[in-house]
Amino acid sequence: MIRKMLFTLGAMCLVFPAMAFANDPSNATLNMGVNSLWVMVSFVLVLLMQGGFILLETGSTRMKNAGHVAGKTIFTAGLAGLVYWAVGYGIAFGTANADAGTSSFIGWGDFFFNPAITSVDDGLPTTIFFLFQLAFAAVSLSIAWGGFAERAKLSSYLIFTVIYIAAIYPVVAHWIWGGGWLAADGAQDFAGSTVVHLSGALAALAATILLKPRIGKFNKDGSANEIAGHNQVYTALSVLLLWVGWFGFNAGSTLAIGDGFFGYVAFTTMLGAGAGAVSSLLISWAVTGKADITTTLNGTLAGLVAITASCAFVDPWAAVVIGLVAGVLVFYSAKFFEKMKIDDPIYAMSVHGAAGIWGTLANGIFATQALAEKVGVGQGGIIDTGSWYQLWVQFESVVVCGAFVLAASFLVLGIMKLVMGFRVTEEQEIVGLDLSEHGAYGYPEQMKKAGQNLQG
Amino acid sequence: MIRKMLFTLGAMCLVFPAMAFANDPSNATLNMGVNSLWVMVSFVLVLLMQGGFILLETGSTRMKNAGHVAGKTIFTAGLAGLVYWAVGYGIAFGTANADAGTSSFIGWGDFFFNPAITSVDDGLPTTIFFLFQLAFAAVSLSIAWGGFAERAKLSSYLIFTVIYIAAIYPVVAHWIWGGGWLAADGAQDFAGSTVVHLSGALAALAATILLKPRIGKFNKDGSANEIAGHNQVYTALSVLLLWVGWFGFNAGSTLAIGDGFFGYVAFTTMLGAGAGAVSSLLISWAVTGKADITTTLNGTLAGLVAITASCAFVDPWAAVVIGLVAGVLVFYSAKFFEKMKIDDPIYAMSVHGAAGIWGTLANGIFATQALAEKVGVGQGGIIDTGSWYQLWVQFESVVVCGAFVLAASFLVLGIMKLVMGFRVTEEQEIVGLDLSEHGAYGYPEQMKKAGQNLQG
Amino acid sequence: MIRKMLFTLGAMCLVFPAMAFANDPSNATLNMGVNSLWVMVSFVLVLLMQGGFILLETGSTRMKNAGHVAGKTIFTAGLAGLVYWAVGYGIAFGTANADAGTSSFIGWGDFFFNPAITSVDDGLPTTIFFLFQLAFAAVSLSIAWGGFAERAKLSSYLIFTVIYIAAIYPVVAHWIWGGGWLAADGAQDFAGSTVVHLSGALAALAATILLKPRIGKFNKDGSANEIAGHNQVYTALSVLLLWVGWFGFNAGSTLAIGDGFFGYVAFTTMLGAGAGAVSSLLISWAVTGKADITTTLNGTLAGLVAITASCAFVDPWAAVVIGLVAGVLVFYSAKFFEKMKIDDPIYAMSVHGAAGIWGTLANGIFATQALAEKVGVGQGGIIDTGSWYQLWVQFESVVVCGAFVLAASFLVLGIMKLVMGFRVTEEQEIVGLDLSEHGAYGYPEQMKKAGQNLQG
Repeated sequence: MIRKMLFTLGAMCLVFPAMAFANDPSNATLNMGVNSLWVMVSFVLVLLMQGGFILLETGSTRMKNAGHVAGKTIFTAGLAGLVYWAVGYGIAFGTANADAGTSSFIGWGDFFFNPAITSVDDGLPTTIFFLFQLAFAAVSLSIAWGGFAERAKLSSYLIFTVIYIAAIYPVVAHWIWGGGWLAADGAQDFAGSTVVHLSGALAALAATILLKPRIGKFNKDGSANEIAGHNQVYTALSVLLLWVGWFGFNAGSTLAIGDGFFGYVAFTTMLGAGAGAVSSLLISWAVTGKADITTTLNGTLAGLVAITASCAFVDPWAAVVIGLVAGVLVFYSAKFFEKMKIDDPIYAMSVHGAAGIWGTLANGIFATQALAEKVGVGQGGIIDTGSWYQLWVQFESVVVCGAFVLAASFLVLGIMKLVMGFRVTEEQEIVGLDLSEHGAYGYPEQMKKAGQNLQG
Repeated sequence: MIRKMLFTLGAMCLVFPAMAFANDPSNATLNMGVNSLWVMVSFVLVLLMQGGFILLETGSTRMKNAGHVAGKTIFTAGLAGLVYWAVGYGIAFGTANADAGTSSFIGWGDFFFNPAITSVDDGLPTTIFFLFQLAFAAVSLSIAWGGFAERAKLSSYLIFTVIYIAAIYPVVAHWIWGGGWLAADGAQDFAGSTVVHLSGALAALAATILLKPRIGKFNKDGSANEIAGHNQVYTALSVLLLWVGWFGFNAGSTLAIGDGFFGYVAFTTMLGAGAGAVSSLLISWAVTGKADITTTLNGTLAGLVAITASCAFVDPWAAVVIGLVAGVLVFYSAKFFEKMKIDDPIYAMSVHGAAGIWGTLANGIFATQALAEKVGVGQGGIIDTGSWYQLWVQFESVVVCGAFVLAASFLVLGIMKLVMGFRVTEEQEIVGLDLSEHGAYGYPEQMKKAGQNLQG
Repeated sequence: MIRKMLFTLGAMCLVFPAMAFANDPSNATLNMGVNSLWVMVSFVLVLLMQGGFILLETGSTRMKNAGHVAGKTIFTAGLAGLVYWAVGYGIAFGTANADAGTSSFIGWGDFFFNPAITSVDDGLPTTIFFLFQLAFAAVSLSIAWGGFAERAKLSSYLIFTVIYIAAIYPVVAHWIWGGGWLAADGAQDFAGSTVVHLSGALAALAATILLKPRIGKFNKDGSANEIAGHNQVYTALSVLLLWVGWFGFNAGSTLAIGDGFFGYVAFTTMLGAGAGAVSSLLISWAVTGKADITTTLNGTLAGLVAITASCAFVDPWAAVVIGLVAGVLVFYSAKFFEKMKIDDPIYAMSVHGAAGIWGTLANGIFATQALAEKVGVGQGGIIDTGSWYQLWVQFESVVVCGAFVLAASFLVLGIMKLVMGFRVTEEQEIVGLDLSEHGAYGYPEQMKKAGQNLQG
């Protein structure tokens, strides 16, 4: 009888797992599948953010440049894809020298990325990790274009895309996310307030300083004129699209579903965005007497930029505080840059720069020890731990990354300016880049009417 | 030998599950992960619907108000997020008094929602459930703005957001979805024809009655003038975005993947939308001789609104019938409200009100017993069961929810009208809310040209 | 003691699997769930492509037709849903005659598709498979509208929707994807360069030949005038939306997550798109001296169309080559069709036709044996295997499918032209289809101003 029982038991033990683990995918495979799916969806959402940038940039600029501004997003994104494939990914995440320990300064290898068809690393197909990282690089690049708007030559867009995506952005990405030296220091930048947003903003700053302000932006007495963008429906819709995409950006940066922590990250992201929208509306209304639409749109984005570093590290109430501060900050930051006679048509320096710095530093204040341990990066901030250490690390990463991107962008764009010219001629700028760079208006019917009116 | 066999058996029994259940996530965790992912995706899709509302509202109104209409969606959505976090969620789903049984009238607790980081309820992270429900509340709010369009003061948007999201919408949500008394009665409203759409439409109705029609809408003899929206590309694209988002709205309301039932819900949703598009086109063409674009766009949305209550309860053929009726209904409903001298610029009362009522009642006619049992709410309708009971329950929920939202909105907006004024001045309305409320045109270049023409 | 051990063992063997397999979903169910979720997301992404078509078509045409062009996408998509449900799906995938083996020419059965609520086929809910396939059919239809633009009667859109979705598209889909005779030959068309894109393009070709060019497109001496589209922000955004949607289109066509191969498909898709963007920009700049925006937008789409057939069959470097060729091809193809006096306002013949043919043939050159075996369709191409066989099969499928769609469309549209007229009158075309077919401008404020100017 014991033998019979044993036989039955044996059969059950063998047959049950066989049913589950042989014909059907294993739990490990299913887990990889669920995580793959989430990161793929997140990649798609981050790519959708390029649609946000098309609308944000065109809506914030004038009709005579609309085709140029919109179209360049498509071909620079396409070019960025090829360059990141050929070079950038290898600089950020290449592991050719992994035998000698991961390099702390740059990655190496995996150029012209050609993974095995079903190559998996850390529980994620490498192809999907590549796409997700590429979409981040492209967002950073699109932020940089804010400093080029309405006056840079078309060729400068192409050359800067190659250099930024091959050799500037990937270096910073490696330092913080690729196992580089700032990662070793415990720098907390969950989804890229510094890596993506501050980098883009400082490239934009270098560009706008070298290009000088647009014709008519500043008067001889130093006062500023408003050069209003042409379409606030575009800009409002752009903020919505960016907001939607940001859930891929932030919550997708978990790279895994696991215990549902990606939901928590999305939750703090939502709170940061809402707080930025509200505080920027109120500060604008209080100070100027009018609830400026551009300010509240920028405030929403600033809330999102700021919470990007801290979304996985802070409590809900702190996410609200971070967003409220970001919304106020963006209002005064825009005023500051205008006073400094820096022409920033898309507000890249305020939305992505000032709020990016604030968001990164905020971790040093608000990060909780429990969440730092959960994520496994750095430690809690002043409030939770009483220690200033994390704030120091955050400060260090802002300064170091910022200095590198600003210097590298200045160097590259400065050489371009000397060798081939960076800015279109005065005549080309006045007629608009649609005609001068592409030979046709983006709004041919409406511009023709305008021309008739002017002639009439 | 038996001991050896036992040892082997024991090792197998212990090792196999260990492989599957210790290193890798368990089936329960994976199931939670898959469901989390689906509801997260659905939340993102429902948030994307705000992009649809930006385009729907701006496209249906005039150029002088475009920046105002578009921008207010961003900051009211942001504000709604904070208010729902602080108060609304607790009213709809708070469980502080769960010991005393769930309250049938309102929920309580979970204010300033601060869940444990990986808190899971009913197999779903509570953070993701929160976000999904918040997105629904924001949709209902955006529907309500239809009644405010082109004449309400900016401050009224802010105050109504706070009250609607804190104390009106969550009450209805609690009654039907939060374990309230209509849920106990078996009211079938799968994804919110009543909770979301009818509520929003009746808040819009209260607003438009209190605001009175826009200047120029009705003549002294009672006849109506058409105040055409300025951009049908926006409105057509808005319908597409809403349609896309609706698959998160309806199919996401399953809150689970399970046996694939969410696919069935999406399937009936698609049929309802298509039927609404076709019948509204044909009725408009047949009656007016022209295939009016606005009518067919409204008909598509009406099909979606109507199928929202019934998507999980009816057969495919019934989904088609529900959509066909909704498309015809929206055409005559719009005519009816115009005859009643109710000015409804975005057609909220017809698209979300009339079709929302029809969709809710349709369950009482078409719901099948099998599907009611599968979903676990109420019972089959007249056709399948011969019983009028479910139709009565549906009727009750429409009347009760409708009366509550209409009365509460009237009260709140009526007080606002008395205390601080609800409508902008005649002069402000004529110049447009872009200038009067925000100090700048949303289309500065195009409006300037128009101004030049008028002066010329 | 042995008995006790046995009891413990038995309990463990029974309890562990019970925990995992009874209360929680089995691995088979979870696998179905993950795959369902991916295909549902992909369906939503492909549906979003209709938003891309709304913007692509309106942006490429004139303001007087904008409401018509945008609105018709909504109601033809809705109608297509009903027709595909009633008839088309059954022709493509119906299995009524499965007993007699799958028909090689058309499917049959499943008309007025009414699956069991949780019907699953090949590990996927049939409802979700239906929706995914419907979205593909709707994309093909929207491509066909390129040949109708700015001059076809509204009624012709409705009738052609019925016939194309019921009896033209599903036949080709059956041949290649429904187990038909080209599938049996090993034709490789992973996501539809031929089935979806070439079919749509050839329907467009039939239409544009029968309709003749728009008034003013060609001069008496045979030279062509440019009739510029009115909004390049729309067209650039459209390309971004289509690009985003394409990851559902291509990577979703895996219909499964499995070992993460869907990531590989997305990866080659990204490379093809980027390459098309870059090469079209450079060829346009080199040949015309101006970097034409329309060309680079078309080149990006052409890269996507071309990689659609081959995304699962080729190495990364080959994906880049396929995209580069597609971008150059689309530039010369557009010139060729203009020389042939074929008026193609949305460039459907070049973007979807020429690039669709190139992408399908490219498999015969670049497909690797390893990937052909992984996908389980056909074999490797010339480069990997030295065999011309696959190229022959690809050529055959292009010729056969192309001939069928062109002939069928010509027949149907030719009869329509004879019986009821296909083109609007000259007067209607000049005033625009917004007024003539729908009774109102899509841009009433802007067109009124234009009218005032003309009268002034």
